[in-house]
Amino acid sequence: MASVFGNNIKISIFGESHGSAIGVNIDGLPPGIQLDMDNIRYEMARRAPGKGETTTARSEKDEFEILSGYFNDRTTGTPLCAIIRNKDKRSSDYDVMKDLMRPSHADYTGYIKYQGYNDYRGGGHFSGRLTAPVVFAGAIAKEILKKDGILIGSHIKSIGHIDDLGFDYVNINEEAIKMLNQSEFPVLDASKEKPMKDLILKAKEDKDSVGGVIETAVINLNAGVGSPYFDTLDGHLAKLLFSVPGVKGVEFGSGFEISKMKGSEANDEMYVKDGKVMTYTNNNGGILGGISSGMAIIFRTAIKPTSSIGKTQRTIDINKSVDAYITIEGRHDPCIVQRAVPVVDAVAALGVLDLLMEKKEYGN
Amino acid sequence: MASVFGNNIKISIFGESHGSAIGVNIDGLPPGIQLDMDNIRYEMARRAPGKGETTTARSEKDEFEILSGYFNDRTTGTPLCAIIRNKDKRSSDYDVMKDLMRPSHADYTGYIKYQGYNDYRGGGHFSGRLTAPVVFAGAIAKEILKKDGILIGSHIKSIGHIDDLGFDYVNINEEAIKMLNQSEFPVLDASKEKPMKDLILKAKEDKDSVGGVIETAVINLNAGVGSPYFDTLDGHLAKLLFSVPGVKGVEFGSGFEISKMKGSEANDEMYVKDGKVMTYTNNNGGILGGISSGMAIIFRTAIKPTSSIGKTQRTIDINKSVDAYITIEGRHDPCIVQRAVPVVDAVAALGVLDLLMEKKEYGN
Amino acid sequence: MASVFGNNIKISIFGESHGSAIGVNIDGLPPGIQLDMDNIRYEMARRAPGKGETTTARSEKDEFEILSGYFNDRTTGTPLCAIIRNKDKRSSDYDVMKDLMRPSHADYTGYIKYQGYNDYRGGGHFSGRLTAPVVFAGAIAKEILKKDGILIGSHIKSIGHIDDLGFDYVNINEEAIKMLNQSEFPVLDASKEKPMKDLILKAKEDKDSVGGVIETAVINLNAGVGSPYFDTLDGHLAKLLFSVPGVKGVEFGSGFEISKMKGSEANDEMYVKDGKVMTYTNNNGGILGGISSGMAIIFRTAIKPTSSIGKTQRTIDINKSVDAYITIEGRHDPCIVQRAVPVVDAVAALGVLDLLMEKKEYGN
Amino acid sequence: MASVFGNNIKISIFGESHGSAIGVNIDGLPPGIQLDMDNIRYEMARRAPGKGETTTARSEKDEFEILSGYFNDRTTGTPLCAIIRNKDKRSSDYDVMKDLMRPSHADYTGYIKYQGYNDYRGGGHFSGRLTAPVVFAGAIAKEILKKDGILIGSHIKSIGHIDDLGFDYVNINEEAIKMLNQSEFPVLDASKEKPMKDLILKAKEDKDSVGGVIETAVINLNAGVGSPYFDTLDGHLAKLLFSVPGVKGVEFGSGFEISKMKGSEANDEMYVKDGKVMTYTNNNGGILGGISSGMAIIFRTAIKPTSSIGKTQRTIDINKSVDAYITIEGRHDPCIVQRAVPVVDAVAALGVLDLLMEKKEYGN
Repeated sequence: MASVFGNNIKISIFGESHGSAIGVNIDGLPPGIQLDMDNIRYEMARRAPGKGETTTARSEKDEFEILSGYFNDRTTGTPLCAIIRNKDKRSSDYDVMKDLMRPSHADYTGYIKYQGYNDYRGGGHFSGRLTAPVVFAGAIAKEILKKDGILIGSHIKSIGHIDDLGFDYVNINEEAIKMLNQSEFPVLDASKEKPMKDLILKAKEDKDSVGGVIETAVINLNAGVGSPYFDTLDGHLAKLLFSVPGVKGVEFGSGFEISKMKGSEANDEMYVKDGKVMTYTNNNGGILGGISSGMAIIFRTAIKPTSSIGKTQRTIDINKSVDAYITIEGRHDPCIVQRAVPVVDAVAALGVLDLLMEKKEYGN
Repeated sequence: MASVFGNNIKISIFGESHGSAIGVNIDGLPPGIQLDMDNIRYEMARRAPGKGETTTARSEKDEFEILSGYFNDRTTGTPLCAIIRNKDKRSSDYDVMKDLMRPSHADYTGYIKYQGYNDYRGGGHFSGRLTAPVVFAGAIAKEILKKDGILIGSHIKSIGHIDDLGFDYVNINEEAIKMLNQSEFPVLDASKEKPMKDLILKAKEDKDSVGGVIETAVINLNAGVGSPYFDTLDGHLAKLLFSVPGVKGVEFGSGFEISKMKGSEANDEMYVKDGKVMTYTNNNGGILGGISSGMAIIFRTAIKPTSSIGKTQRTIDINKSVDAYITIEGRHDPCIVQRAVPVVDAVAALGVLDLLMEKKEYGN
Repeated sequence: MASVFGNNIKISIFGESHGSAIGVNIDGLPPGIQLDMDNIRYEMARRAPGKGETTTARSEKDEFEILSGYFNDRTTGTPLCAIIRNKDKRSSDYDVMKDLMRPSHADYTGYIKYQGYNDYRGGGHFSGRLTAPVVFAGAIAKEILKKDGILIGSHIKSIGHIDDLGFDYVNINEEAIKMLNQSEFPVLDASKEKPMKDLILKAKEDKDSVGGVIETAVINLNAGVGSPYFDTLDGHLAKLLFSVPGVKGVEFGSGFEISKMKGSEANDEMYVKDGKVMTYTNNNGGILGGISSGMAIIFRTAIKPTSSIGKTQRTIDINKSVDAYITIEGRHDPCIVQRAVPVVDAVAALGVLDLLMEKKEYGN
Repeated sequence: MASVFGNNIKISIFGESHGSAIGVNIDGLPPGIQLDMDNIRYEMARRAPGKGETTTARSEKDEFEILSGYFNDRTTGTPLCAIIRNKDKRSSDYDVMKDLMRPSHADYTGYIKYQGYNDYRGGGHFSGRLTAPVVFAGAIAKEILKKDGILIGSHIKSIGHIDDLGFDYVNINEEAIKMLNQSEFPVLDASKEKPMKDLILKAKEDKDSVGGVIETAVINLNAGVGSPYFDTLDGHLAKLLFSVPGVKGVEFGSGFEISKMKGSEANDEMYVKDGKVMTYTNNNGGILGGISSGMAIIFRTAIKPTSSIGKTQRTIDINKSVDAYITIEGRHDPCIVQRAVPVVDAVAALGVLDLLMEKKEYGN
């Protein structure tokens, strides 16, 4: 049940961090779509590890192989399955994890759920590595949406206490989104990149980690996408976002801040401009009653500091059922926010495309 | 697609605010459960309007009629459908809404999605009134969970800028939850009730509205509930929560605040106490890798200020496609946070029960 | 899980034969559809009991009440729920059934599945009475399909050993289908009506029952409906058909007979006629690879003789776990084939509409 | 939507006959199951081509590679994905098929559904080759069921007009099932093997093909599996069976024959034997009200003669939209019934396991 998502596009994720391969099966893609493989590789490279001092040293090129559903350079409309072989595995780093549960990881909950049979190496199926096939699928969704003019982009809204500027909710142009898509460390205020990176490097030096917030915009999405009562656009996106490792909060538009506003401040008053319905503000983040309003979809995702840290921590030995200490030696990111950006873009694209594919008209 | 939820318990919601009835069909309930009808009525009364100065004057007793799935005072295991007749309808209040879209409501998005055929009276299917059957279903789920020792309770964490205390994430006792369940205006710090209510009445007087945050705890839930990759406990709850009208943000454990912590601060270190695995802190809100950890599930839900306000607002006339003004005359709540508390409890119960019903063992 | 069906149109069925009401919630209907209530009543009357000597004496007018999703004489696009009150209940007829399991009914299997908590009166949720909401939903689906030119009709292919003619698979005109829809006892060869009815009356006289086969055609459905690998049009229809009480077999086109043909006899050779692709024969019943071919969809459904018979039968007393005898006194049909015709039409309409609603194109 | 099946065990099928690989992702398997790889290989070998004169000359060893979900010789409980590389591809055989639609194949319907973008080589996603991953998944399901004592076996009930004996519905012992599982050409009456094979070889010689019927039994399945209204055991199995290429009919127990019986003949009278509820006959094939009764599940599946025949046939050129002739040169089976036996077993196992996994009890 768990690893399949979607009403109209079904995504099935599989794999473990240190197994032979990870991958995704995508069912329900429209036929005849030509994919820009360079662009998919680019999106995957944004997520891939080993790119600089601020990320893990594990080196995975994340080369994908499409096994099905793509013929003569076009999607066939039948399931498109792609796999990524795991290569730079140093499983011995993780031997200790067989018994010692890493705090704030899924080691313990996975052990309980799967009765001790889960692949514990590198987090197994819970590893951030599983986001690689998610980004692959999302890159395809992004491409399909782009053909329809719909663009998705995110920036690092904060790292620890250092804040970037926020989006202008009512006025985000395409160039801004494209620039974010092309940035290795996307921020709106370029002057924030260095202090943010310094904070990450300081955490690394301290054998510690930091978290942050990602802010995302989806622009040019028409009104009418999403459905009450349960398949709301916000709920659909939230469900996908909480599947991304490390996410602890999701808010749309003014989010938690809106709870402090008066109705007269929060309400997005409406007007008609060149025949198009607009709102003067966009505190609702482009979603009303679970349906897109035609304004930009805006949301923020809170990412916790990397759970793997070099400092010694108190934990348990699951085998002996006693208290213990753990010092995690494996390679890991001092901050996963940067690498989470393309993942958040990917799930946003998948969620939007899935609901957009809902048929609006009947017909023979 | 939209109005059905659940993997193991399927909830189908139907109805419009001013139609003949609203209701819910619940499929997959375990057979043989005796329901405490007084308790269900109590939960529904918590949500029902017309209870005091701080809520709308619309008077609906929300008497439910169970049509099926209940026989000899026990659930049969076949679908349990219940309906609630709409009685105190003053649809004429809403005539103006046929053309004038109320800002921050789903009037416009519903119009677009349903091509103008939606029942616009009182918000139709988007009305907060639809939360009545949700609370009915949730009250049943709460009862079933309670038989297993699992309790769910919420308090008003804030109204506008006025904050209540927060839960102690690692130590919430059953009495505290029961007290919240029995409170008409649940707060942890009793001294906050009056200033919060005053703020609501002030907003009412100003023809304005206020919002707030609800904090919820689920206690005594064993480890192992929820599934990667997509059916995570947090994602499942979030999807349900965003279906509740007015919700703009959901966060678990330390939520957005965790993004400002160091890993060494955020990580929940583990220990064994009387054979049970515990954590010293609970910044993850009882969920790791999308699976319950055995610690209390903690989450907060941001509720926007009521969109219906008495002040005149700028809007559009959808029929003429021109700018217009709207002054909403209908009866409405100056703040929906208080009435949203049992709704949040209800969806929490439904989400937890649904994932708990996932079979863990196979067998003939 | 069990009582919800559909990918794009979700049908939720609820109710028991002797409960307060039975009904259906239909989610995903296109908005703006004007329903012909007389026609829906007509379809329901075809199924309703108490119409003549050949059916049960239970008198139920099956008056439906639409609770939601219909406004200003049009579907709103939000869930349409309708209920039918149970009126002519003689539950005392069924007291004996609490312990004595009626052979070939679901009394025993329902008892086991629901651990003895099922409503046993009149078969409860398993009663043929539950087909009333199915026919209601199907009548709506039939109307929607008709607006698109797609017609569905069935005839009684056989009662016991008495056979009607079969459809001409390649040439079924609209008039023929309409005539079947309007017939109370639809046969292609009018001379077969009397012997069939005589056989039914003879069975009634003998306190026995007879079964039969229904043959159905769906015409004017374009090619392209249905999906591999699992959502095939034939599999989708078969799943629905086996949900109808009494169905023991389903075959498409030449069905079981095709297994005796040579490939050169069975293959439907193709040609182009006025730009439309046709086949000379239609042994595949209009479905290839699970997808409609543009030829008429043809299938046959085997209905067993009514399980309720007046003769004394050997059975068990479930309470005492001993052998026993049962003589069923309640009112029942000596043959359910006639009344099953509109039910088969209904599920055919629901299955076809559901797959037809699958979006073929993406787009903003 | 189309290529994912199951409520509790989700199966996702992917691949095309001449693509790089075909495969299946299985989500929801219980953790800790040790698989007998030799047995899985054996089941796949039963289906694989190239085994004798009666099957196609295409030689595919169908070696599978498990990519995920299997660790330390046990299922992990997370998705198990396996792929099978396509090796003996002679795609040039199929060049002609780009434009000439093979009668009774899915060439035309696939072309229409996928707007001409489908991979036409060897039938692409519609190829019988896709049954290899189905058999792989089914072999795992069969193993899990076997641990619970549930056995599944099929025999060739007929080839053309040559009939094998039928199962004794009320008395099928485990040895009989095991023998069928081990037979290369399973029949109950050994004397029928030669005439059946002769018929197949005669068809081959004539550049023609033959079909047949497969009869299947599932024994030792307890009462209580399957759910009204729509997730009936028979409907669930039928949906899966109609996904198998070439299937045109499915019937349970006495199937179409039951429609000719009187109720007093058809009803399965009940008795208690050593505390177990039994029936004297089993015309209902072990399913009542869509739920298993504890008696053997019996069903028959009609398989059409292979659509690929060497004889020249009338067809259309889809590109030019004109009539044409086609002579199929590729390697193909003169009869697919023999190879369909393990496929039918596989889908039976998947369908039964999926419904068996439905949780019967709730609990923390």
